[in-house]
Amino acid sequence: MRNLLLTIRYCGTNYSGWQVQANAPSVQQTFQDAVERLFQARENVTGCSRTDSGVHANRYCCNIRTASALPCQTIVSGLNAYLPEDIAVLACEEVDYDFHARYDCTGKEYLYLLRNSAVRDPFLIDRCWLFKPKLDETLMHAQAQDFVGEHDFTAFCAAGASTVNNVRTVKSFTVERQRDEILFRVTADGFLYNMVRIMVGTLVYLSLGKIPLDSLPQILSSRDRGQAGVTAPPQGLYLNRVFYKKETP
Amino acid sequence: MRNLLLTIRYCGTNYSGWQVQANAPSVQQTFQDAVERLFQARENVTGCSRTDSGVHANRYCCNIRTASALPCQTIVSGLNAYLPEDIAVLACEEVDYDFHARYDCTGKEYLYLLRNSAVRDPFLIDRCWLFKPKLDETLMHAQAQDFVGEHDFTAFCAAGASTVNNVRTVKSFTVERQRDEILFRVTADGFLYNMVRIMVGTLVYLSLGKIPLDSLPQILSSRDRGQAGVTAPPQGLYLNRVFYKKETP
Repeated sequence: MRNLLLTIRYCGTNYSGWQVQANAPSVQQTFQDAVERLFQARENVTGCSRTDSGVHANRYCCNIRTASALPCQTIVSGLNAYLPEDIAVLACEEVDYDFHARYDCTGKEYLYLLRNSAVRDPFLIDRCWLFKPKLDETLMHAQAQDFVGEHDFTAFCAAGASTVNNVRTVKSFTVERQRDEILFRVTADGFLYNMVRIMVGTLVYLSLGKIPLDSLPQILSSRDRGQAGVTAPPQGLYLNRVFYKKETP
Repeated sequence: MRNLLLTIRYCGTNYSGWQVQANAPSVQQTFQDAVERLFQARENVTGCSRTDSGVHANRYCCNIRTASALPCQTIVSGLNAYLPEDIAVLACEEVDYDFHARYDCTGKEYLYLLRNSAVRDPFLIDRCWLFKPKLDETLMHAQAQDFVGEHDFTAFCAAGASTVNNVRTVKSFTVERQRDEILFRVTADGFLYNMVRIMVGTLVYLSLGKIPLDSLPQILSSRDRGQAGVTAPPQGLYLNRVFYKKETP
């Protein structure tokens, strides 16, 4: 038996997220169908994390334990032939048999794309948050530095999520404007449910003056979801990188 | 009566091109429907040029003669509310009554996006030409300089096109790589039918060695479409700018 680490990219618009769900097309289900056609066996695909409906991935990682002897390059081209066009396999490499895409993950990087313009971009429909009032990216970048470090992020977790330990370490958080687009980039050792989207929505509220400046430390320590801002919509979110002890391809 | 110059942007995937056609959705038809809803009158919309089925536009120009007294900013937001998401109005300004979007056009710039990679990009489906064999952008850029200047472009015009005068002046032609994407950018005083797509396909053939190096002057003087390369597919083509004597907004 071999263990394969695959890096894939997908546009999440037509999917209910990564995880297999009854009555809704998922990336995992679609991927497992392609794997079954190529390997002539139903293999279980282990993803690095769930993603929400409509969320995208530039570099998502998953692993497959399989008896198949197909060379890695053949697996890449074979899966790409069987997958729909909105999912692509970028790389495949053989890893230790005990490697696990979720448990061995040491961190992730997310991007959030916000279009800050009065007019939509026909090429970014379903790929960004169209937000018309003018935002201050310099202010948001400065405020976002209060997220960096080890904190209890309960206030930035969707209500009802049942995590035991809500302490995470944000390694970096940057906010940059490129013309009409504002790009949020956040790296952490792990993320709570909806955490990136609530952090982005809260920075937007800070820029609008709906939340007082410099109040992120107080919101964090409140552990109260009600004190943070809106949850930014899913279509602007991209899982950008997944970190393991060993660099992924 | 006023004459309005509108700049619009559209993703052409779901359209048969700009021009109204029987039995196929066109950008012009869709646009005229939105104009009719806003102005409560069926106005004729004059485009700067036809575009082919599946071709995109970053900045397309058209003009409308109308009795409407709506302010330009209201026209922008009103049309954007009535248009589908894959078409957006970027700007509207009042121009001389005799201004004509096609006849007064002094030049255009097209972009052609080619993805040069073994693997598709899920975010660029229907938005580029996926071409897997490795291409040499430096060679293509150098060869493309033979297009610059005043030439008879009959060899780079779709067979059956009925233009009287096939002489055009290419002002500039650049070919640049950005990672896995090759961007062709060409500006001219005018273009024949399929001219950009045949020029791009011919540069690709030059890079592949299917057409001998330095043969563009000979192909141009042959005036024979059969000597040029393949017609690159429509989905990589973007009308990027339209030039008038006066700068457009």
